[in-house]
Amino acid sequence: MKLCRFGAPGAERPGVIDADGRIRDLSAHVGDIGPDALGADSLKRLAAIDPASLPLVEGEQRYGACVTGTRHFVAIGLNYADHAAESNLPIPEEPVVFQKWVSCIQGANDPIVIPKDSKKTDWEVEMGVVIGKRATHVAEADALDHVAGYCVINDVSERHWQIERGATWDKGKGFPTFGPIGPWLVTADEVGDPQDLSMWLSVNGKRVQDGHSRTMIFGVAQIIAYLSQFMTLEPGDVITTGTPPGVGLGQKPEPWYLKAGDVVELGIEKLGEQRQDVVAWTAAD
Amino acid sequence: MKLCRFGAPGAERPGVIDADGRIRDLSAHVGDIGPDALGADSLKRLAAIDPASLPLVEGEQRYGACVTGTRHFVAIGLNYADHAAESNLPIPEEPVVFQKWVSCIQGANDPIVIPKDSKKTDWEVEMGVVIGKRATHVAEADALDHVAGYCVINDVSERHWQIERGATWDKGKGFPTFGPIGPWLVTADEVGDPQDLSMWLSVNGKRVQDGHSRTMIFGVAQIIAYLSQFMTLEPGDVITTGTPPGVGLGQKPEPWYLKAGDVVELGIEKLGEQRQDVVAWTAAD
Repeated sequence: MKLCRFGAPGAERPGVIDADGRIRDLSAHVGDIGPDALGADSLKRLAAIDPASLPLVEGEQRYGACVTGTRHFVAIGLNYADHAAESNLPIPEEPVVFQKWVSCIQGANDPIVIPKDSKKTDWEVEMGVVIGKRATHVAEADALDHVAGYCVINDVSERHWQIERGATWDKGKGFPTFGPIGPWLVTADEVGDPQDLSMWLSVNGKRVQDGHSRTMIFGVAQIIAYLSQFMTLEPGDVITTGTPPGVGLGQKPEPWYLKAGDVVELGIEKLGEQRQDVVAWTAAD
Repeated sequence: MKLCRFGAPGAERPGVIDADGRIRDLSAHVGDIGPDALGADSLKRLAAIDPASLPLVEGEQRYGACVTGTRHFVAIGLNYADHAAESNLPIPEEPVVFQKWVSCIQGANDPIVIPKDSKKTDWEVEMGVVIGKRATHVAEADALDHVAGYCVINDVSERHWQIERGATWDKGKGFPTFGPIGPWLVTADEVGDPQDLSMWLSVNGKRVQDGHSRTMIFGVAQIIAYLSQFMTLEPGDVITTGTPPGVGLGQKPEPWYLKAGDVVELGIEKLGEQRQDVVAWTAAD
């Protein structure tokens, strides 16, 4: 099942994607795709509804982030060995954990705003994990029971603020518009093994990232078990699981970054695709 | 004006402290002390109510966190020169920024649970800043206009996970119960200069921290202006601004930490006091 949130920013409604790839309106059956909707019983109830019986949503629609009510937007760094190498950093012995400010969350195809004065805005295709059930001290063997589904995330990153402004990475990871999530939350049953998904990202049609979740250093189950030792994962929380090689920072012979007018496209097998126009910062942002 | 939230966890009601230090029930005038209540117009409206006209809340009451709906729990590290020294870390050239998981937020006097297997659970008295108005790219001169009020925070920290488990500090800063906030949100007008507040913390009656906000490296206005360059501060957000010397990690001749049965008491001039029993982790936590 592919769940989505469609409509204008702040006024999204819940939807489900039908067999023909069209949006069907789920409003009569669930308030929103948020924490209350993501438990196993709720997902089972929604899955029992025949999409063809729901109102067809006509016309071009904006996709909001595929989940709302996210309180923790957790990120795993350097989780692909090749990406750690291109970043000139050692392969971590345990997961590198940071946070993206939840205020950066936006729709899958909403524009990315280059931060004021930024010259190092970068891309990162990543598999997102959406938590469906509270997790604290869960064993790796049970960890995937806590997943509602998966989605595409662009972990947009400003390398100057991430790396050159001291201490933690958080400064460069959560500028407004830096968290496109979606277009869909694809439920775990439909995805199967999260370590068997190919992914890619291109800038202006040039393919820059090609990766596969099988090369993750720490898999989804390991990550959830690890995090749950020191924090409470809650329904609606999103974990973005790291990026494969090919980010701007790692380009040869030298790094290059996004600029206004660029177009970023990215996708993950089974999870859908995103497309973002890159735009300049204005005082209205 | 001193605003609070009183009652059982998850069922708190809004209150205001009257001239005699008693809780008056604000439920008839505001839904909760959350983002919608913290704007200047809302605070002005609440301040116009005579507390004596409100229902007196009888009996011993639990204080919940003094603000709800917090989406960003931002923390500033090493923000007192003496504390940086006791941590054997250089004085930062710009603010050290990390995040506490919002799920760690709890009432001012709720027990602190020592994490499973932890031997290094530490205390940090800190002045908390509660945002009342959205802030993005604000100038230092205008920054305090975005503050609804101030409160006491114990930035409870697990040093093993903070320091010895790789990369960012976030792993050790947001265990469940690590974010006591309150008892009150004291509005900015009543506090005056946030850089003129003394603060202290004791463990089992032994005074271990004695500090003053005048010795902060980066003051409240600087911090807000700095953060607003790379994130959107929203109403209800909480910034904890760093701790003065005297944490467990800095004790001489050697560090010592909290254990079950300890009692932590802390306070800040004009902002009130907290008292936490330290308890052992159980599988129910």
